[in-house]
Amino acid sequence: MKIHIVKIGGHLINDCKSLHDSLEAFCQLKGYKILIHGGGRKADFLSKKMGIFPKMVQGRRITNKETLDIVVMTYAGIINKNIVARLQSYHCNALGLCGADGNCIKSYLRKMTNIDYGYVGDINVKSINTHLIKFLLKNNIIPVLCSITHNGIGNLLNTNADTIAAYLAMSLSKDKEKDCEVEVELHFCFEKKGVLRDLQDSESYLKKINFHLFQKMKQNHTITNGMIPKLENAFFALKNGVSKVSIGHPNHLNDVNKTMLCL
Amino acid sequence: MKIHIVKIGGHLINDCKSLHDSLEAFCQLKGYKILIHGGGRKADFLSKKMGIFPKMVQGRRITNKETLDIVVMTYAGIINKNIVARLQSYHCNALGLCGADGNCIKSYLRKMTNIDYGYVGDINVKSINTHLIKFLLKNNIIPVLCSITHNGIGNLLNTNADTIAAYLAMSLSKDKEKDCEVEVELHFCFEKKGVLRDLQDSESYLKKINFHLFQKMKQNHTITNGMIPKLENAFFALKNGVSKVSIGHPNHLNDVNKTMLCL
Repeated sequence: MKIHIVKIGGHLINDCKSLHDSLEAFCQLKGYKILIHGGGRKADFLSKKMGIFPKMVQGRRITNKETLDIVVMTYAGIINKNIVARLQSYHCNALGLCGADGNCIKSYLRKMTNIDYGYVGDINVKSINTHLIKFLLKNNIIPVLCSITHNGIGNLLNTNADTIAAYLAMSLSKDKEKDCEVEVELHFCFEKKGVLRDLQDSESYLKKINFHLFQKMKQNHTITNGMIPKLENAFFALKNGVSKVSIGHPNHLNDVNKTMLCL
Repeated sequence: MKIHIVKIGGHLINDCKSLHDSLEAFCQLKGYKILIHGGGRKADFLSKKMGIFPKMVQGRRITNKETLDIVVMTYAGIINKNIVARLQSYHCNALGLCGADGNCIKSYLRKMTNIDYGYVGDINVKSINTHLIKFLLKNNIIPVLCSITHNGIGNLLNTNADTIAAYLAMSLSKDKEKDCEVEVELHFCFEKKGVLRDLQDSESYLKKINFHLFQKMKQNHTITNGMIPKLENAFFALKNGVSKVSIGHPNHLNDVNKTMLCL
């Protein structure tokens, strides 16, 4: 059983044409597939319109009650349902889910250390209801997951979409299907062609990156900001049983023009 | 096969305690069940906060693009997902859906007559994907439907929740299950005990109402405003194969203290 997991984020979601192109590319993937999305900037836009200003620490949003409501509305509401409606128009039988739906992702409130992240949910391999996900896939339903989870006692929590993608890929990889391995390919898609050797040159993407090179590029500041946790999630997945992990543009989901991760 | 369909609306959704009590009562219903909700006033509140003022004509919202975004965020986002998270905490395996999810309710844009309702979707018996709904029920998943539908060509539309409840009940009633009839009980729940004989006396609910009495009470203005389309939907369902239709408070879902409709 082979499953493609595609995470889309960044500018792809903000721009209508980019989003539709990404969804068309996703539809063209053969076999079982799952889509995961966040939607950060739309939530920022909505917050500002309502006079609430998002607070970020180390690239992560601080989620108070008002902000939680906004991310739920944005991620699970407008973004998720518009993606599903668009995929349906491409005859791709999508079904949108947040982590509470069918108890598909159960998280726990992040423990307070020096920073109080608020209503943020952390997950582990046990968090994912792989039974439900595989049940939907086998019945020709394509799960479209947003980055909202729940804690099982009635609260929704905000969880990083890259982290969900990584844990979902690992959890499905660990499952066995009637003595047959589950092979998972995880694709992190964004507006760039891959991990860039030179940030000023959009064509300078690496064909391959291993963990050692990642560490080196982090030290010399070629890899910075949001790319660091994204690659950390990606390597974590690769080290934990996921068959293939790539980073690149959705236009190249179906070819080799992207950055492949190797150990 | 017996299915309970419960529609909750009105003040039940605005008030947190009423909503939680309604969900507890819903959980106590035995057997197959489906929940449907709207959420009008939350959308109004959010609109105003964003400087957009809702326009109503004959009790129906005029849905321009901005208003559509707000109802999608509110109904499919914050209300639907909070209901699902709460039901999960009661060990009720809920899964939230809008009409685009799994193509479960396909609507068509309301034809413009003297009023342009905007992004409003009308439905008929063929609109409902009963196959998906029954598939979920049989796999111990409880569908929680919000009143957002899609037109199959990528657009979300706003549809009246009472109308969805009525058509869903009729569509499921018309289905046969391996030569066995599907018996549907439809419950319209709101903050009152039923159809009131005297609007000033909350205890004056009718135990029974037939279509003739409804017409009479409409003429003498005992039944007014939003109760008229609600009862029209309810009688329409009863005339089209639904076994039982009731109107009342969710606290009495499991007993006889409500208004039962009869032909």
